[in-house]
Amino acid sequence: MAEVVGDGASRLERRKARTRTALVRAAQSFIAEGKLNVPVLEITQAADVGMGSFYNHFESKEQLFQAAVDDAFEAHGNLLDRLTGDIDDPAEVFAHAFRLTGRLHRIEPELCRVLLAHGSALITSDQGLAPRALRDIESATAAGRFTVADPQVALALAAGAAVGLGQLLHDQPERDDAEATDRMTEDILRAFGLPAEEAHRICQLPLPDLSSVASLGSVA
Amino acid sequence: MAEVVGDGASRLERRKARTRTALVRAAQSFIAEGKLNVPVLEITQAADVGMGSFYNHFESKEQLFQAAVDDAFEAHGNLLDRLTGDIDDPAEVFAHAFRLTGRLHRIEPELCRVLLAHGSALITSDQGLAPRALRDIESATAAGRFTVADPQVALALAAGAAVGLGQLLHDQPERDDAEATDRMTEDILRAFGLPAEEAHRICQLPLPDLSSVASLGSVA
Repeated sequence: MAEVVGDGASRLERRKARTRTALVRAAQSFIAEGKLNVPVLEITQAADVGMGSFYNHFESKEQLFQAAVDDAFEAHGNLLDRLTGDIDDPAEVFAHAFRLTGRLHRIEPELCRVLLAHGSALITSDQGLAPRALRDIESATAAGRFTVADPQVALALAAGAAVGLGQLLHDQPERDDAEATDRMTEDILRAFGLPAEEAHRICQLPLPDLSSVASLGSVA
Repeated sequence: MAEVVGDGASRLERRKARTRTALVRAAQSFIAEGKLNVPVLEITQAADVGMGSFYNHFESKEQLFQAAVDDAFEAHGNLLDRLTGDIDDPAEVFAHAFRLTGRLHRIEPELCRVLLAHGSALITSDQGLAPRALRDIESATAAGRFTVADPQVALALAAGAAVGLGQLLHDQPERDDAEATDRMTEDILRAFGLPAEEAHRICQLPLPDLSSVASLGSVA
């Protein structure tokens, strides 16, 4: 490939970024509609880019779908950061984020299904929710709220449990998502050293209504 | 397909079962050697069965590999049942099983890698380790050792955490597997209501050496 320098490079980079964004947005729409079997050609048509452009950015449809889910969860993470920005207690910040994320499965089931298919790789990812959860665990430990000897092991527990919760809610569509999520959050707070009554209290606190905010608004 | 009755049926069934077992064993050998990209033809040759037989039993290589992993974990579950059969305290039975399973990642890394690729579906599976973990959680709760309001949520937490642990050990090959596993087990025991000192004590108890027993002996 010929090297492009100076202004040309940044113009090329911008165009590449636009193409990638168009493909990711199109994939998010198909995912939200549950159309996971859509052919690559149809995705490129919806994104208004050429077939060749697709393979400049992604090796496969699965890789694009993964990028689409990563992007949506990055957006969810940003939303969580905004919603919990005013909370002083870092244990409460962690609990709020976990409780709000568990509630996503009923709001965005198709997106969460793609997530579950790649779930374990996201547990230790340096993007999306994992680094935010690690940050909250470390803050709560530094503040003396959590008693956690190894934050990475604690993250693996919480992130793995989040995948387990998703699988449970996916397998049992009739199950109350809020109840199961809050119960698991309470268990995790106890795992991280919070007394049982304190863990229970935190998981009873009112939450903002996720379905009313622009959570995964990019999806649709 | 023509119906076969009487003795012929059972002979046919036996032959089908033998073919399936041969394919599963061959797949386990390839997995243990890390040869995940092996073509179906090579698997059928190693199993000494025809190409057509393969597709009578499995839709794809991925499905066979999944069956191979399921079979290996069923064997591991049987081993855990034997190793913990003499332990009276159900909380200790659960902890022993979790601690021994976490140690599998360094002993059978390739097998565990296939497991991680399908991890979330196994969390609520009615085969392998999940039903055994649920049984142990329910026993420990009935005995008053665990304080668990919903055993299925507790299972989703423990099984998800096990996947998270596997991902952590896979991403950080230099990490001490026994230390990380015991730390996570201790966290989970606290999540299930055991006092911190009691959780710590149980996770310090000596374990049988998994690598010296015929754990996943069918794999090799």
